[in-house]
Amino acid sequence: MTPADAPGTGSTETARSTEPSQHGTTVSELDSPESIAAEVSAGIEAFLELKAAEFLAISPDADDIGRALLEFTRGGKMIRPVLLWWGFQLASGDDSSRSALNGGVAEAAGSLELLHAAALIHDDVIDHSDTRRGKPALHRQFESRHSERRFQGGAEPFGVAAAIVIGDICLALSEELFEKSQSVLGITPSARDLRATLRRDVMVGQYLDVLAEVVPLDDARIGERAWEVLSFKSAKYSVEQPLLLGAALGGADEEQLAEISRFGLPLGQAFQLRDDVLGIFGDPAATGKPAGDDIREGKRTVLIAESMKNLNSEQTQIMAERLGDPDLSDSEVAECVSMLTESGGLDAVESFIRSKHDEALSVVREWATDSSPVSSTRTRIGPTAQRQLTKFAEALSYRKS
Amino acid sequence: MTPADAPGTGSTETARSTEPSQHGTTVSELDSPESIAAEVSAGIEAFLELKAAEFLAISPDADDIGRALLEFTRGGKMIRPVLLWWGFQLASGDDSSRSALNGGVAEAAGSLELLHAAALIHDDVIDHSDTRRGKPALHRQFESRHSERRFQGGAEPFGVAAAIVIGDICLALSEELFEKSQSVLGITPSARDLRATLRRDVMVGQYLDVLAEVVPLDDARIGERAWEVLSFKSAKYSVEQPLLLGAALGGADEEQLAEISRFGLPLGQAFQLRDDVLGIFGDPAATGKPAGDDIREGKRTVLIAESMKNLNSEQTQIMAERLGDPDLSDSEVAECVSMLTESGGLDAVESFIRSKHDEALSVVREWATDSSPVSSTRTRIGPTAQRQLTKFAEALSYRKS
Repeated sequence: MTPADAPGTGSTETARSTEPSQHGTTVSELDSPESIAAEVSAGIEAFLELKAAEFLAISPDADDIGRALLEFTRGGKMIRPVLLWWGFQLASGDDSSRSALNGGVAEAAGSLELLHAAALIHDDVIDHSDTRRGKPALHRQFESRHSERRFQGGAEPFGVAAAIVIGDICLALSEELFEKSQSVLGITPSARDLRATLRRDVMVGQYLDVLAEVVPLDDARIGERAWEVLSFKSAKYSVEQPLLLGAALGGADEEQLAEISRFGLPLGQAFQLRDDVLGIFGDPAATGKPAGDDIREGKRTVLIAESMKNLNSEQTQIMAERLGDPDLSDSEVAECVSMLTESGGLDAVESFIRSKHDEALSVVREWATDSSPVSSTRTRIGPTAQRQLTKFAEALSYRKS
Repeated sequence: MTPADAPGTGSTETARSTEPSQHGTTVSELDSPESIAAEVSAGIEAFLELKAAEFLAISPDADDIGRALLEFTRGGKMIRPVLLWWGFQLASGDDSSRSALNGGVAEAAGSLELLHAAALIHDDVIDHSDTRRGKPALHRQFESRHSERRFQGGAEPFGVAAAIVIGDICLALSEELFEKSQSVLGITPSARDLRATLRRDVMVGQYLDVLAEVVPLDDARIGERAWEVLSFKSAKYSVEQPLLLGAALGGADEEQLAEISRFGLPLGQAFQLRDDVLGIFGDPAATGKPAGDDIREGKRTVLIAESMKNLNSEQTQIMAERLGDPDLSDSEVAECVSMLTESGGLDAVESFIRSKHDEALSVVREWATDSSPVSSTRTRIGPTAQRQLTKFAEALSYRKS
């Protein structure tokens, strides 16, 4: 079902938000990530086509905005939409009337993907990144367009200006799509608060990340700060909060939201710790990023903070000089990389990943009525749903790209 | 009343949005711009203090975000909040129960001011502006902070990165404050659409402005494009849409919204045309901007487009070379300025301002029951309200700064 076909669209608010959640019912099977991604993508595409037509009606010059966003939003991994969808399913149970609400859930999920696109567009400007999802970063695309069309003035500032504004437009569209979902799903105060927290925390996390990269490496808060960035810029925003928002939209109460946090937060932390490892040790062919990319970029990850603990003063100095220097040679990067291994930093992070991942899975086991028939949890799942959650969690914690 | 005291806060949705508007009642007096500005400012300040505490709870490093926004939002002209407030009053009439809703109206109005702050923060990055409201632009403030705190890496890119992210956070807070207003005021589909259109149009207008500055001066669409930028980046966003949003929140129907547009759009156009004139002919002591600033910045205003019509080929070439060159000497700027006068461009724009302004005021006269006792308009005002609207409109169209 496309969002436009969803029943109830156009009404101001439905009573949906005040219905009790389906406590006690067991979720036997979750919708597959592939089917969710397909439905959410189709919804985003239809919405952006509509918006592109509106932009074009404002001015022929505005046509590039819609085109650029349509292209940019294709090919995302759709992690957040899948998690929002599953959060909704976990809270609303195997309710047969649920599918009538799928159009609204797809819109809420699509809204997260647009928020993510906006964050990436601005991120790439901030990090001076050249590529994204295998294509030139948005600011680079507009920089090229400047040259192709023989515009005046500097091509690079034009690219940056266009990307800042188009990122802002994408943020606005994310709000608009979320608001559309409300005509189907309604909105509770807790869902509204979660949405506000989600969109704000990721930006505060981004600020902390920007700050972390300019603070001297021997700053006392390096470890704490790395965990703050990891949690707010990524773990909460990418995993915990999409699940929570979906659950709140599905009618979860405070108790169920707390259960879902106990699964989502450690899994999100494992997800981002893996990202940090891949940013340095990942296979460039798989990740699409050059080896040791995070060293040249100067990211202050938990991996770096853990490694610093065991470096001698000479090594510390070398690391401080090199981290964030975009012109490092491959052998200089390789020396830094081997310090991360030899210091025990990598082992420490792998051990964090294991323990965070296991913590998340232990919650999934509690939810599985099979293994715990007298489960007192609000969230109840059958063996198929348990396998699906376990498989997805493993893909987040132990992925290669 | 502060927003936190407003009745109904915390409820999901109120029935307010479905009450009929107060057609036929006459609005005798509007709240004064000063009292509205004071109430909205206090609301923004209280809200940002709350948010600053939340940021601080995330990390001590995040404290600068809240502080910067608190400082940045002080000293705005509050044009949009006043217009939203008045739109609400015009639609809801002299209803004595209205004052109970003022907390919600102040939040909705404050939300527009935060959206405007976000737009200015990003604007200043895009335009490489050094100052804003008599203080260093936000990116310059963070650039200085980088040096003061002996951070590593480039100070300028840090300032830009911080301003992009803090602008994004300010956008998010604007949404949050608007959502708060809904617990008091409720929301109709028309108000929701107006909010979506408002926040999007200003950004599309900003994109068109960025594009206009790089398109060659002899482009066939220069005149059309200047009017598009003027209307979408400013006239609608600064005047028409705040009035409409306030009116929709106050219960206006389509017919009343159309009446308000007939006043708001031409007034908004007069407001921005005046801005264009002041950007070149304004007294630097009054505007706080250097004389001829818009010439060095390369703004492609209606004033420029009108002047180009009557320049000879030699003059056209000089203008094309100089417009947007930040290093022009004062005498080079002065030559351009005199071309704008001699070409008749300035006269044409002054005549547009007069006719747009008069068009807006003729609508106000229709609303005044005094002069037209059998008025068929939805909007009805008494002599005091008429004087207030006239005075405010004159301040927008004929201001000196």
